[in-house]
Amino acid sequence: MFAIADFSLEVTTSADTDILDLTPRVQEEVQAIGVTRGLVHLFIPGSTAALTTIEYETGVVNDLRRAIERLFPRDIPYEHDRRWGDGNGYAHVRAAFLKPGLTIPLADGRLSLGTWQQIVLLDFDNRPRRRRILGQVMGVTP
Amino acid sequence: MFAIADFSLEVTTSADTDILDLTPRVQEEVQAIGVTRGLVHLFIPGSTAALTTIEYETGVVNDLRRAIERLFPRDIPYEHDRRWGDGNGYAHVRAAFLKPGLTIPLADGRLSLGTWQQIVLLDFDNRPRRRRILGQVMGVTP
Amino acid sequence: MFAIADFSLEVTTSADTDILDLTPRVQEEVQAIGVTRGLVHLFIPGSTAALTTIEYETGVVNDLRRAIERLFPRDIPYEHDRRWGDGNGYAHVRAAFLKPGLTIPLADGRLSLGTWQQIVLLDFDNRPRRRRILGQVMGVTP
Repeated sequence: MFAIADFSLEVTTSADTDILDLTPRVQEEVQAIGVTRGLVHLFIPGSTAALTTIEYETGVVNDLRRAIERLFPRDIPYEHDRRWGDGNGYAHVRAAFLKPGLTIPLADGRLSLGTWQQIVLLDFDNRPRRRRILGQVMGVTP
Repeated sequence: MFAIADFSLEVTTSADTDILDLTPRVQEEVQAIGVTRGLVHLFIPGSTAALTTIEYETGVVNDLRRAIERLFPRDIPYEHDRRWGDGNGYAHVRAAFLKPGLTIPLADGRLSLGTWQQIVLLDFDNRPRRRRILGQVMGVTP
Repeated sequence: MFAIADFSLEVTTSADTDILDLTPRVQEEVQAIGVTRGLVHLFIPGSTAALTTIEYETGVVNDLRRAIERLFPRDIPYEHDRRWGDGNGYAHVRAAFLKPGLTIPLADGRLSLGTWQQIVLLDFDNRPRRRRILGQVMGVTP
């Protein structure tokens, strides 16, 4: 039977490009819903965070963080900051580049990720945040 | 009941990394279709444009534009231009990086975006274009 | 009738940012499944490859490759390499930026791509790989 179900995850992030592994919690939600074949779509509402996949290993997570700092520096002028004084112009630009959504296929009720591939939330904001990630599962139940 | 429906939006863009807010028009289409819970997928056919989300505020939109110009300059040689004389090699590279699609969850018939998060089309081409954005809605009707 | 079906594609890649056109094979799979209206989602399991669209023309494919090399150089230190000696830290960072998934709308049983827009796999790893791309089709059959 075809099913569609949603869930949400709440996380707390620290400032300074916090990168969090969401994989076990997403897997748990998917299993609870019971869809065996289909898709899960993840989305982060807000304009200073993004979702992607990476091998969740401290070394490469730091490498990603360093690449982000190099490509979108904090210490150049941002019009957003001049207008609004938020100081997080760089965070908005990073989030627009990395985008807020991610879709993962499901097979046998499990996320079809590579062995060394985890789902991560990147929080670019300049202060700790409470974040809610929205999940939508579509597919077939046994 | 499960429903699937499509729509398309036509927009006219100017050259020079035009960034347009599509949110009200997407919201309107979703409401007309009447799916209350599910997903909307947006896609831009063509290889010199992309979709993402950002706070649609002039300052940060300019900041994004500036980051794109810095990371993918126009004034470096592009093989595409040498071969085809189109002069828009940079536009192709930018579009491949930012990607043509975006999926947004729906709840209570509304786009589950953050308060300061809008859906934008980025047109990188070097001349004004008419663009068609394809929308696909999947989900449940009351 | 609403249908959901999956498929997978196997490809062999060379090292050095191999960029492969998957469009004809995806189109073939979609047609075999027989969904006329809906979506196809593509996903690459693994953390050193990505999917996007581009005009599959040697010039612009080389331009994309050059932009990737410029933005994420191989010859800077990567913590991943220091820890694990894999030598492919740059590949992980590139893949996290370009992301592993892509969704394309279907109309009349065909991929709704632009005329000069092809689906490509980017393999960033530092050695030839066998890769499996997962496809998921959701939509209506006649």
